[in-house]
Amino acid sequence: MDLELAGKVLAEQPFSRLLGARVTAFGNGEATLELDIREELRQQYGFVHGGVLSYAADNTLTLAAATVAGPGLITSGFTIDYLRPATGAVLRAHAQVVRAGRTRVVTRCDVLTIDDAGAQSLCAVAQGNIAVLDGPGAKR
Amino acid sequence: MDLELAGKVLAEQPFSRLLGARVTAFGNGEATLELDIREELRQQYGFVHGGVLSYAADNTLTLAAATVAGPGLITSGFTIDYLRPATGAVLRAHAQVVRAGRTRVVTRCDVLTIDDAGAQSLCAVAQGNIAVLDGPGAKR
Amino acid sequence: MDLELAGKVLAEQPFSRLLGARVTAFGNGEATLELDIREELRQQYGFVHGGVLSYAADNTLTLAAATVAGPGLITSGFTIDYLRPATGAVLRAHAQVVRAGRTRVVTRCDVLTIDDAGAQSLCAVAQGNIAVLDGPGAKR
Amino acid sequence: MDLELAGKVLAEQPFSRLLGARVTAFGNGEATLELDIREELRQQYGFVHGGVLSYAADNTLTLAAATVAGPGLITSGFTIDYLRPATGAVLRAHAQVVRAGRTRVVTRCDVLTIDDAGAQSLCAVAQGNIAVLDGPGAKR
Repeated sequence: MDLELAGKVLAEQPFSRLLGARVTAFGNGEATLELDIREELRQQYGFVHGGVLSYAADNTLTLAAATVAGPGLITSGFTIDYLRPATGAVLRAHAQVVRAGRTRVVTRCDVLTIDDAGAQSLCAVAQGNIAVLDGPGAKR
Repeated sequence: MDLELAGKVLAEQPFSRLLGARVTAFGNGEATLELDIREELRQQYGFVHGGVLSYAADNTLTLAAATVAGPGLITSGFTIDYLRPATGAVLRAHAQVVRAGRTRVVTRCDVLTIDDAGAQSLCAVAQGNIAVLDGPGAKR
Repeated sequence: MDLELAGKVLAEQPFSRLLGARVTAFGNGEATLELDIREELRQQYGFVHGGVLSYAADNTLTLAAATVAGPGLITSGFTIDYLRPATGAVLRAHAQVVRAGRTRVVTRCDVLTIDDAGAQSLCAVAQGNIAVLDGPGAKR
Repeated sequence: MDLELAGKVLAEQPFSRLLGARVTAFGNGEATLELDIREELRQQYGFVHGGVLSYAADNTLTLAAATVAGPGLITSGFTIDYLRPATGAVLRAHAQVVRAGRTRVVTRCDVLTIDDAGAQSLCAVAQGNIAVLDGPGAKR
């Protein structure tokens, strides 16, 4: 997989299109996903909803795994800790592989916001488990 | 808080409106959230996107905490494990309080799908930490 | 595996012997591990050390998985939330299978203490991932 | 707190003495804990027991938080993912603060082994939540 193919996979996910996510970096054990922060993605206090941050973490943890293990992956699960209210212009999630085993990849992710002036704020951190499927008929 | 107020809070979240979530039970340490599964919520294989399941877990873990600790809460974080591909007509998340402390509530959540015939399938389980804010100006 | 074999496996773990752990129930997707609380297992405030609770959770999460998936297992990881200071006479961890897949078992665990009068107190909850090894030479 | 005081706190924990843990670095948002790998700390296959790794993660996640938030802390919980069988001469856990809030510190930890030749192997990664107690009588 390369950046172009990763972008195509994301574009095939209706939910990622609904949220407006895009892959902006992909390779060598690392991946970055971004989306523009807009009204629809907020919670009642005007901050980006935690569900958007967890979506970004989930997808980016698995994208990073795909840079080393290919597309036959399924997210087993992850942990996310929220750090600060998320507000700004762009939400960016960056993940990297910690360990790529034969059947499982462990990855970590930082989720941050970027405001109009380019200032970054770390909003959440996550750690995930990605299962490597061993064939086209493999099931989680 | 009661079911009616919980529904109003959810309706004030633009992201929950975008996903079509509704609170269907609220009280005594337990809360249930549901949403109709539709094309926009899927990933590339036709299953409900993990980000939708994690959104449902996040929100329901905190709703359950609100039944005992009121509305001044903020989700600290959570762990989710995906169990099965999620497909069907309705996604339902049900959470309950495990322990309500003075400053922190720990909750657990089951996320399941229900098909047109009413058959249920458990798709994900989550465990979360909810922080109790100690005043109107409190920050995470 | 049955209760007797599970006890033998535990007895083959030098660290479990050091802590004095014993399996007291094993079967049908559930397992219970107990240990007597003694001075050596405490932290500086006199409560059972979190590391003892996490040991108990780790082992019991995997024991529960072994009731359905046999002995060829390895703990992938887990999440633990501490709820209350742990004190009393006996520490008991009880875990049950949430979902047993072909390659992965997800389990949940409650860790509680029991005092001399038999009163129980829930001290920690955990959720874990157990990998099913597919052969004698399989590695995590 | 400084390295000397951190060492004294650890020495006041009977369980840390039982395991033979020592603090080898402490300051500026980072902490390192080490222990010599010996027979008593192993599981049935000869590797260091997961419970020892989770003990090391638990303690080091909180030690790192103490470098910025002082001694009035309590571990709320953590997630650990095991990466490789742990074997060698020394187990080393290194943690650093990700975000120090007023009431909660989030930290990450790497657990590795070092063999007699000095070669390192990353065995587990963890992410934790540490609660900041707001006074001597504060309870979790």
